[in-house]
Amino acid sequence: MTKAPETVDPHVFVLFGATGDLCRRKLLPAVFRLTQKGHLRNRHVVLGVARDDGMDERSFRSFARQALEDAGFSDSELDTWCDACLFYQPIQGDGGDDDYTSLKARIEEIEAKREMPGNRAYYLAVPPKVFPIVIDGLGRHGLNESPGWTRLIIEKPFGHDLESAKKLNATVHEWFSEEQIYRIDHYLGKETVQNLLVFRFANQVIESQWNRSAIENVQITVAEDIGVGTRAGYYDGVGALRDMLQNHLTQVLTLVAMEVPAAYDARSIRNEKIKVLRSIRKIDKSEVVFGQYAAGEIGGKQVAGYLDEDNVPDGSRTETFVAARLHIDNWRWQDVPFYVRTGKRLAERLTEIIITFRKPPVQFFKSMELDGDVRRDQLVITLQPDEGFALHVDVKHPATDQDLAKVPLSFRYEEAFGKLADAYVTLLLDVLTGDQTLFVHAEEVEESWTLFEPLLDGTIEAVPYASGGWGPTESEKLIEDDAGRWRV
Amino acid sequence: MTKAPETVDPHVFVLFGATGDLCRRKLLPAVFRLTQKGHLRNRHVVLGVARDDGMDERSFRSFARQALEDAGFSDSELDTWCDACLFYQPIQGDGGDDDYTSLKARIEEIEAKREMPGNRAYYLAVPPKVFPIVIDGLGRHGLNESPGWTRLIIEKPFGHDLESAKKLNATVHEWFSEEQIYRIDHYLGKETVQNLLVFRFANQVIESQWNRSAIENVQITVAEDIGVGTRAGYYDGVGALRDMLQNHLTQVLTLVAMEVPAAYDARSIRNEKIKVLRSIRKIDKSEVVFGQYAAGEIGGKQVAGYLDEDNVPDGSRTETFVAARLHIDNWRWQDVPFYVRTGKRLAERLTEIIITFRKPPVQFFKSMELDGDVRRDQLVITLQPDEGFALHVDVKHPATDQDLAKVPLSFRYEEAFGKLADAYVTLLLDVLTGDQTLFVHAEEVEESWTLFEPLLDGTIEAVPYASGGWGPTESEKLIEDDAGRWRV
Repeated sequence: MTKAPETVDPHVFVLFGATGDLCRRKLLPAVFRLTQKGHLRNRHVVLGVARDDGMDERSFRSFARQALEDAGFSDSELDTWCDACLFYQPIQGDGGDDDYTSLKARIEEIEAKREMPGNRAYYLAVPPKVFPIVIDGLGRHGLNESPGWTRLIIEKPFGHDLESAKKLNATVHEWFSEEQIYRIDHYLGKETVQNLLVFRFANQVIESQWNRSAIENVQITVAEDIGVGTRAGYYDGVGALRDMLQNHLTQVLTLVAMEVPAAYDARSIRNEKIKVLRSIRKIDKSEVVFGQYAAGEIGGKQVAGYLDEDNVPDGSRTETFVAARLHIDNWRWQDVPFYVRTGKRLAERLTEIIITFRKPPVQFFKSMELDGDVRRDQLVITLQPDEGFALHVDVKHPATDQDLAKVPLSFRYEEAFGKLADAYVTLLLDVLTGDQTLFVHAEEVEESWTLFEPLLDGTIEAVPYASGGWGPTESEKLIEDDAGRWRV
Repeated sequence: MTKAPETVDPHVFVLFGATGDLCRRKLLPAVFRLTQKGHLRNRHVVLGVARDDGMDERSFRSFARQALEDAGFSDSELDTWCDACLFYQPIQGDGGDDDYTSLKARIEEIEAKREMPGNRAYYLAVPPKVFPIVIDGLGRHGLNESPGWTRLIIEKPFGHDLESAKKLNATVHEWFSEEQIYRIDHYLGKETVQNLLVFRFANQVIESQWNRSAIENVQITVAEDIGVGTRAGYYDGVGALRDMLQNHLTQVLTLVAMEVPAAYDARSIRNEKIKVLRSIRKIDKSEVVFGQYAAGEIGGKQVAGYLDEDNVPDGSRTETFVAARLHIDNWRWQDVPFYVRTGKRLAERLTEIIITFRKPPVQFFKSMELDGDVRRDQLVITLQPDEGFALHVDVKHPATDQDLAKVPLSFRYEEAFGKLADAYVTLLLDVLTGDQTLFVHAEEVEESWTLFEPLLDGTIEAVPYASGGWGPTESEKLIEDDAGRWRV
C-alpha cells in the first residue's frame, strides 16, 4: 500500500527561534520524523538561529536531543543525526548587519563543505513583532535568493488587523515573491482537512450534493475546554476572533465552500479559496455573538472566570468566544447559512465541521428519537479529537414497522490507518518539496481581515457565559432563528 | 426506543400443511415469537390442518412443542400456550366436501367457544398442486368470507410459467378478492429489504442520487454455496430462473428501481413495483447466461457435478445458474444496466445488491489499490449473511500526498440492534394486521412471468461451470462488455 517516500532536495533549514517552544515541541520532532520516514535521505542541515543567551552548538544539540526524546523518539541514530545535521548560530536579534553577514557566511560555509546546491528554507518561529526584522535582514543581505530555491515560512499571527497584515505582506513582498512564501496555518496540515477536498472531489456521490440544493446549513465549531491559562499576556486584547476565527475557522470554511478548482494544485486551489472569501457577504453585527467566560464547572472542577485569571486586566472586554452567521453570495451557497463558533472553557475539546442536509421533500416515516420530528441527515467531519467523519443517516428501526433510527456511517483515520503524523510533519514536507497548497496566500490574509476587521471596533459587547457550557445563549439564538440548532 | 407492540385482532390461524417442514421450522416458531413479543395478547388460535396420517390434537401439540424447542424456545409458558391455543383438524386432502364441511364446523365451534369475531387467516404451506384444491374447497364452502376478516396466504412457487400463474390467479380470484390475498416471498420480510425503501425515502442524500445521473449500474447477486442436495426431485426441470430469478431477485429489483410512491402504503408501493416490471425491456437471449454446476472444490472439499447428484436424470439440461442483463426503459433508469445473477455451488453464500456510482467527471487523484485506475464508489447492501449495508467511498490515504484509499462506511443491523427477527415473523405479523406491502400482487406475478417465460423455451444452453467459483465465464463477459465487473 505504501510507495517510496518523496525525497527532498539537499537543503539548509534555517530555524529562527530555534530554542523556543514551537521548535522544541513541534519543528525539531517534525524534521526528525521526516528523516525517519526517508524523506531526507539526501543531505540536509538544520541551522538553529536564536538570540544569543550563551547557547552554543554543543548545547543546542543537547537541547534538540532532549526535545526529540521528549517527543518519544528513542532512535539509536539520534545522536548521529544531531551531530551530523544540527548546527547553531546565535544572533543579536536587533536587525543589525552583523547578524545577517555572519549568518550568510555560516550558511555558505556549510553549503560549501557539504557540497550543497544552495537550497534554503527560513522558518520564522519567532514572535510577530520580529517577523519584519528578520525578513528585512534576510533581504538586505541577499539571503532572499540563492543558487537553488529559497523559501520563507511564517507562523501565525499574520497581522492583527487589515492594515498590519497589508504592511507585513508589503515587507515580505519587498524581498520575496509570493511563490517563496509559506504562511503556516497548522489546521491545514491535519489529515481530515486535507481529506475534505479529496473526499469531495474523489467521490461523485459527495460532490454532487455539495450545494444549496442538498445542504441546509454548515456549522464549524472549534471548541476548547481550557481557559486562557498562562497566556493572558498574549491573549488579552487579541481575543477569539483574531486568534481563531480570522485564520483557522476561516481557512476551514473556504475549503468547505470552494468550487472545484481547474486543477488540483496550489495556484488553482488558492484561487478558489480567495473567491470564496470575496463572496462572503459583509457581516452584519447583529449576526455576531461575542462572549467572555465566567466561572463555572468543567469535568466536575470549579474554574475561575476570565476576569479572575492571572494577568487579565480589570474590566477586560476581550472576547473568549465568538459565533457568527455568514452568508456566501454565490450560485453554490446562496441561502445556505454558515455558522461558525469558537471559544474557550466550553464543554469539551472538539473541532467539527457539520454539513446538515435538507430533509426529504415528503416525509413518509417517523423518527423514533424525536417523537415524529425528523432530524436531518448530517455529515460530521471531526478534526479533533478523533480525526475522521461520519455520515448520519436514517435506517428502518427493526423493532418497528417503519420508524426511523439515525445511525452513523463512520470512518476514523487512526482506526483505519494507525497513528497519524503531526500536522507539522505534513506541512514541513510540503515546504521542502515546494507545494504551497496548504499555505495561506497573501490575498487570503487580506480578504479575511477585510471581512472581520469591522467587527473589532469595540461595539460588540462580550456577554458573559458560564464555563463548561457552549457559550452565551445568544449563540443558540443565532441558529434557532433559522429553525436549526448547533449539533452539540 | 421501543413502543408498545401492535396488537392483532382475535383470530383463527388455519395452517394447511401443519405437519410439514415449513410449519415446523418457520411458521410455528414465528407465531410463538409473536405471542412472546406481545402481539397476540388478544385471543388467538392456531388450527393445524393436514392430511390424515393418524395424528391427533394431542400428538400435534407434541409435534409443535418439539418444533418450538428445536427453534430454541424454552419458555415456561410453552406448554400452556400449546394446550390453550393449538388445535388440529385432519382432512382427506382430496378436495371432497367432507373436509371443508367439517373444517368449517370446527372453526365455527372454536370461534363460538372462544367468543371470537370471526377473523380467519388460511396459510397454504402445501405443495403447489394442492393450492387450487384448497382454495376451491374453501370457496365452495363459504370459508372465503366470515363475520370478520378472511385472509389467504400462499407460499411460492406461484405458477411455473405465465399460463399456470394466470390460471392460479383466476382460481384465487374466483373466491377471494386481491385485498384478501398474501402471496409470500420471504425475501421481502428481511429487514434489509424493507430498509431499502426506508433508506431511500428517508434520506434525501440517498434518494436524490438514485437515478441514471448518479448511478452507473446495479448488480443483484443471490449466491448459494450448496448444491441441489436432496431436492433434485423438485428442482430438476424447475431450475434457477423459476426458483430464484423470477421471484426473489425480481422482487428485489423492483424495490431498488421503483419510483417514490404516492403514499407509503401497500397499494401505492405495489403499483410502483408493477410499473417497474412493465418498463423492463423484453429480454434479449444474448444477454442471458445459463449455467449448470460441474464438479469442483468448495471449502477444500471435492463436490460432485449436478449431473452426478442423486435423482438428477441423465443429460438434464436444468440450469443451476442464471445471469442476465436487464434494461429498464424509463426516465430514471434508461442506460443503467441491471445485472442479476443467481446460482448454486458458487464460492460463497451471499445475497447482495450493489449500486455502482459514476466516477467523478474529472479525476484529480490516483487510487493506491489499482495503479491509478479509479474504482467506482459503491453502495453494497447485504441481505445475507450479515444484513446491513456499506457505502464504499474514497478518502485521502494518510501516507501519501493525495492518493486515494477506498473505505467502507458501514452499517450492520445486528451490530446496531441485536439479533433480527426471522422474515416469517415480520410477514406473519403483516398478514395478521392486514398490511399487504410486503406481499406480491397478482399483476406482479404475471408481469414477471411475461418477462421471463420466453427464456424458458429450451434454446438457452446451460454451460457447465466448476463448483466453487462464480459461474460460467460468460457471466463475467456479460458485464465486462460494459467495462464493469461483478463486485465479487
